[in-house]
Amino acid sequence: MEYRRVKDQEIYDDLSQKDVESLSGRTLSSANTTAIGPASAGGAKANSSWKLKSVVTLALTLLTSSQAILIVWSKRAGKYEYSVTTANFSVEALKCLLSLAALFRTWNCHGVTDDNRLTTSFDEVGVYPIPAVLYMVKNLLQYYIFVYVDAPAYQILKNLNIISTGVLYRIILKKKLSEIQWAAFVLLCAGCTTAQLNPSSDHVLQTPIQGWMMAIVMALLSGFAGVYTEAIIKKRPSRNINVQNFWLYIFGVIFNLVAICVQDYDAVMNKGFFHGYSFITVLMILNHALSGIAVSMVMKYADNIVKVYSTSVAMLLTAVVSVFLFNFHLSLAFFLGSTVVSVSVYLHSIGKLQPQK
Amino acid sequence: MEYRRVKDQEIYDDLSQKDVESLSGRTLSSANTTAIGPASAGGAKANSSWKLKSVVTLALTLLTSSQAILIVWSKRAGKYEYSVTTANFSVEALKCLLSLAALFRTWNCHGVTDDNRLTTSFDEVGVYPIPAVLYMVKNLLQYYIFVYVDAPAYQILKNLNIISTGVLYRIILKKKLSEIQWAAFVLLCAGCTTAQLNPSSDHVLQTPIQGWMMAIVMALLSGFAGVYTEAIIKKRPSRNINVQNFWLYIFGVIFNLVAICVQDYDAVMNKGFFHGYSFITVLMILNHALSGIAVSMVMKYADNIVKVYSTSVAMLLTAVVSVFLFNFHLSLAFFLGSTVVSVSVYLHSIGKLQPQK
Repeated sequence: MEYRRVKDQEIYDDLSQKDVESLSGRTLSSANTTAIGPASAGGAKANSSWKLKSVVTLALTLLTSSQAILIVWSKRAGKYEYSVTTANFSVEALKCLLSLAALFRTWNCHGVTDDNRLTTSFDEVGVYPIPAVLYMVKNLLQYYIFVYVDAPAYQILKNLNIISTGVLYRIILKKKLSEIQWAAFVLLCAGCTTAQLNPSSDHVLQTPIQGWMMAIVMALLSGFAGVYTEAIIKKRPSRNINVQNFWLYIFGVIFNLVAICVQDYDAVMNKGFFHGYSFITVLMILNHALSGIAVSMVMKYADNIVKVYSTSVAMLLTAVVSVFLFNFHLSLAFFLGSTVVSVSVYLHSIGKLQPQK
Repeated sequence: MEYRRVKDQEIYDDLSQKDVESLSGRTLSSANTTAIGPASAGGAKANSSWKLKSVVTLALTLLTSSQAILIVWSKRAGKYEYSVTTANFSVEALKCLLSLAALFRTWNCHGVTDDNRLTTSFDEVGVYPIPAVLYMVKNLLQYYIFVYVDAPAYQILKNLNIISTGVLYRIILKKKLSEIQWAAFVLLCAGCTTAQLNPSSDHVLQTPIQGWMMAIVMALLSGFAGVYTEAIIKKRPSRNINVQNFWLYIFGVIFNLVAICVQDYDAVMNKGFFHGYSFITVLMILNHALSGIAVSMVMKYADNIVKVYSTSVAMLLTAVVSVFLFNFHLSLAFFLGSTVVSVSVYLHSIGKLQPQK
């Protein structure tokens, strides 16, 4: 059951990475139009972009931190009563619908332009399934890594994602981090891992070489998918994000349809598509769809580094909220890890100023 | 027994803080005389001072890291066969003798000057017992804190020393640390604590308010004593360090004589002063005396911040060496803590450059 929990959580995590903004049509256009003020158009635009970045980062943090809590609530007596593949499909389909809804709104306000038309070329859309395929390969690997690694050790190893994202962000997107920001990134990884330490965490030191190799490959696949999504979205900066999202999500819908057929075909045929859905399940699906939108906005208006910080802080927030909701026990390791993560966030922000000197 | 171990270790730690350089007569004078070269006297002097600082810091790190190992070796079947107060007295007396020996050497080479004469004024020596008194009060408190705190929790709380030293260093010596260096200092504290985590560390969260207050007072006393010693030694930069040390240690000798009379009078009278001493005990006393000398040199030629970094790195080195010597088990928490401490050392060193810009 622990294994299933981790696996499902991971699938949700992955899904939320292939996301796209859909409600932002109005927000974005208003941000872009109100930016041109009388005094300093450039300054106002930078200010507006900074605000947008902050809002999407905050949204991602809050949505991600409530994700794990909704997952716990959606389970009754420790097991899922609904089929997880149909929930994943619903999340992808909802994101597609929200993208389309936002597009309709944009078309109504501003008309159809080259940047917001839905039709696309193979040149543009040909790379869109790549992140989805990367995540699929990673999810397949996930079934095999548990041969070598137990669930608590896997939770620890997942923090390798932080390092792989940083390294691939540097290599693929060719963006530089300052020395202090690199130090902060190492601290973020160490701090997150420390915060998650529990008495059985030391199992991870007994991980066989195959387990390490698989964990590293999975971290690279996940990091590569994230960085690649950013590259795709940023390649056409003026292209409407809802169109980009629609094409990203449509592959998510297709892949999840395949997953339903492979994994839960009998259950869906016998008990129905929405069997076991509760109010909390619906809330959870809505939360995942909105988180996905937030991830996409962070990719478009900030970057993968901001995303990693945001989801790491969300992990800590989840634990704090769980103290009140589930009588969760906070360990000394959690406080120490949180301190290190906080210092890391601080260093990342002051480290940014260095290159300007 | 665990309690006794912690207590004794602490007494040694404290003793080694009231130390003074004694072997350095030749080293220092040669460093000071060879510094005036033909090309750039200032540059050569800075370079020589940097070398001296590095050598004393390295010496302190290596001596401190072997301290705990010698203490373990000096015990047979988990208990001390010698009386700890006589060992402390021997350390202080040895440091006094080494200071005098170094002084004789200096007098022979350079003659007696105002800076290296042993005679002193009340104005100079009047403040010398203050650190010793502070440590004594702290050691007395130590007997009472165990009413509220168990030994593993006390090991964790001792890391408050790091923070108190930083704060008092700033307030009393009025030396500024850069933002990055402050962040590094918080990380040093979090990293050291993380490296020492074990399954029973969470006890510390159940520490009652009295335990916290006493731990904080003890950290302040210890930090204040360290910073005060630095202030005393640095107040007269040209004064020979061996003279300064002699006067510091003579109070250590007196206070430890009192401790023998109070604590181990019967044992010393019945079994003799050196009862239970082995080769390892002698080695340990020599190590403590030399560590004391190294602490003093770090205080004179570097500062309390360098001392804290040095002893923190020594703690990690001790653990690594213990893997080979005692089949010590390194935990995941140790690796994470060591990573954080390493990043902290790195940040402290790059943070230094900031104020020069």
